[in-house]
Order: sequence, then C-alpha cells, then structure tokens
Amino acid sequence: MNLILFLNDDLSKDGSLAEISGLRAKHIIEVHKAEIGKELTAGLLNGNIGKCKVNKIGTNYVNFELGNFNTPPPPALPLTLIISLPRPKTLKKVVHIASCMGVKKIYFIESWKVDKSYWKSPVLNNNELTEQCILGLEQAKDTVLPEILFRRRFKPFAEDELNQIITGTTPLAAHPYKALPCPERINSPVTLAVGPEGGFTDYEVKTFKELGFSVITLGERILRVEYAVCSLLSKIFK
Amino acid sequence: MNLILFLNDDLSKDGSLAEISGLRAKHIIEVHKAEIGKELTAGLLNGNIGKCKVNKIGTNYVNFELGNFNTPPPPALPLTLIISLPRPKTLKKVVHIASCMGVKKIYFIESWKVDKSYWKSPVLNNNELTEQCILGLEQAKDTVLPEILFRRRFKPFAEDELNQIITGTTPLAAHPYKALPCPERINSPVTLAVGPEGGFTDYEVKTFKELGFSVITLGERILRVEYAVCSLLSKIFK
Repeated sequence: MNLILFLNDDLSKDGSLAEISGLRAKHIIEVHKAEIGKELTAGLLNGNIGKCKVNKIGTNYVNFELGNFNTPPPPALPLTLIISLPRPKTLKKVVHIASCMGVKKIYFIESWKVDKSYWKSPVLNNNELTEQCILGLEQAKDTVLPEILFRRRFKPFAEDELNQIITGTTPLAAHPYKALPCPERINSPVTLAVGPEGGFTDYEVKTFKELGFSVITLGERILRVEYAVCSLLSKIFK
Repeated sequence: MNLILFLNDDLSKDGSLAEISGLRAKHIIEVHKAEIGKELTAGLLNGNIGKCKVNKIGTNYVNFELGNFNTPPPPALPLTLIISLPRPKTLKKVVHIASCMGVKKIYFIESWKVDKSYWKSPVLNNNELTEQCILGLEQAKDTVLPEILFRRRFKPFAEDELNQIITGTTPLAAHPYKALPCPERINSPVTLAVGPEGGFTDYEVKTFKELGFSVITLGERILRVEYAVCSLLSKIFK
C-alpha cells in the first residue's frame, strides 16, 4: 500500500476526518507503523491525491485528519481489456495487475475453452473484485476504480458490442499461434483481447480478425494470464 | 504446465521410459486429463524438448514412453538479475516469473531496506525455489534451470563481485526516484538490479552509479516486485 484510498463511507460529514477499520487498519498499524502525527499519502475514491495525518489509533481502527487533496491521480491507460474469464484465483490477480497498471475498463467474456464452472464462482458476485481493485490502486497510487463487466455469451458480445468498443482504437487479440510479435509503444487507444489458457478457438480468432483485430503474440514462452497481461501492457504502452 | 520436465531421477536407465509421481502426477492426470496413448510435450532437465506418450497410469504415478528429444529449448534472456531479497512469498513469485521469462542467473542480495527476518526463511534452504523454477520452466516450455545465488552483505558484493558481473553488459538499476524511463528493446546483455519495497538507499544508488549503472524507472505507478520484474524484462527485451 503506497497510498491509503479513502472510500466515501470512511469520511466524516464535513470531509475533514477519515476513519478506517478492520484489515486495512491492521495493515496501516503493522506495516506502515502508523504513529500519531505521522503523515501518509492518501487518495479519495475516484478523486484527488493528498496527505493525511494519523490522528488517533484504536485496537481496530485508525483515524486521520485530512489535508488538501489537490493532486490529480496518474493518467489512465487508454485501453479496454477483454479477457476470457480465468479461474477465480487468476481472476483476482488479473484484476489486481490491471488496476495497478491503470486499466479502467475490463470485460470478462465467455470463450469456448473457459471452464464453465468459473461462471459460478462466488468471486464474481461478492466484493472480492472491488477489494482487489482497491489493493491495486493503493499499490500504484491511483484512485479511479476500473469498471468490470461480464459477458456470458461470446457471439452476442462479438456481434452486438465489439464493433462499438473498438471504434477509434487499435484492436489487438493476443493468441499464441500464427500471430505477429506484440507491437510496442502504440501509445494511442487500444482494445486488447486476451484468450484463456489454451488460447481462443479458430472460430473466435476468425471473429476477431473479421472485426479488424490484429492477432499478436508474446513469443514462444507462454506466461500465466496475469503476467501475460502485465507483459503485453508493458510493451504496448511506454 | 505446457511441458512436462523430466528430472534425471524420473528416467529409466536406458532413457526410453520416465515415471513421475506425487503432485506432478496428480496434475497430469487431473488437469492434462492423461489417457493411455496420449502424446504430450516434454523436456529433459537442462536438455532438449520432444514428445512423450502416456504408457501407464497408477493411482499416484504416470509412466511415459519417450520419443526423440531433438528440439533445443528456447533461447535464454541475456540477463543477470540482481534483486534485493523480498519477503518469502514474493521470493517464490519472483523466481517463478524470472524462470518463465528465461532468466538464467539471479542474485538475491542484502540491501538496507530488506527486512532481516527474510534471511531466516526456510524457503532459502529447502527445495521450494527449485520447485518454483521447475513450474516456471514447465509453464514457459523451457528446460534450463536458472542459477540462484544469495549474497548476504551488500558492500563486499558491490566491491568484489559486481564489477565482474557487469562486464560486457548494460548495467541498469531500477529505482523509482530521480531516474530515467526504462530503456526499451536493448536486446544485448543486461545486468538489472531491482531494489526492495521502499527502494534502494542513497548510498546503494550511489554505489550502483559509481560502477556505471544507469538508474531507471517504470514511472509513477509502483508495481509489486514480481510484476515490476515482468514489466522491466518485457520492455528491455523484444
């Protein structure tokens, strides 16, 4: 945690104080070694960054006095990420690294090789993904939550939505076979589709190609999905 | 696992059969859905890549018939990684991603902000790091184990060894302050030093600079060490 992200519920009515409790408080007490008077970097959810001062420490909470929050968060990546729903543990890691790196819109989609049981994971319906987003933002000193969307059927998504999503962007589909090397430093809006372990099917690749996607690869070494996302974004953006 | 890595002990005397047991066998049975006669990609530790055929499946083992192993492993990254010893959980992740990406030499070093308790972790002395290397190689379809070295004191390492290590390489030290943007596509030998959470101290940065290291950064977003390594390597090498 390189920044404490205050959620709306953490703030006092006049916005001059904030209080956090539970695990987040524990982390600030134990890892940040919070002491009364210590100044820490903080951000307001979807807002600016500034400083706060530790005001009071309880057994299970920390209270802060807020300074001015005048610094805007770092720029977002101009990227829409479309990714085949990975296993729940990997899903959380993907959300973490995407949040860290500044992605603000993620579609998790069905594709043929996605294990159907993943759609039943409780992770999709509880607060765990929002928590991962917050951890990612606190790690990277950002404040703006990404939007996470789920699309349970590939064909309607591809036919009805994808054309609109890629308008004005460079559309890329990462797939390990018959692909071009990942382009570097595009630095303009990109739509990036990432397949499941085992890759997209031929039909799915054909669908992406017909919509104008270039099929790209990181090379012969196959990385776990969370690292593939990290590596692709590191190459595509400066 | 995109390749089954056979260790020397897995092979029959004449090298025509291999047998694995325990967790690795379980993975091949459950995830790869091994069936008798099924052909899988395999590699020989520090050797070539080829095919093997499932010969026999027991409750706790899988036996394979080996084909020809004629394909060399993918090229290594021309990189020596020097990294401040991270917490044990992160250490395993760093070893995994470095193995995946083709790093063949890693020094874990002391630096001022390394928590001294990390040096007492059992992870440093048991087989867990070798297991992580093997998992990384199996993920990336490589066979060559990286060499992992520990250097418990910064000053003697810097004074007595570092000069030799960096000879013929571009020496880079990743540090988030007063740094140049990470260079891209160097594609020639590199020595990359990565600091602990909280960064190197001024003295450590000065030591690296005096030896000829350029101080570089990934930008204002601070990534967890394992992702920082992934991102740096993705930028530095094509």
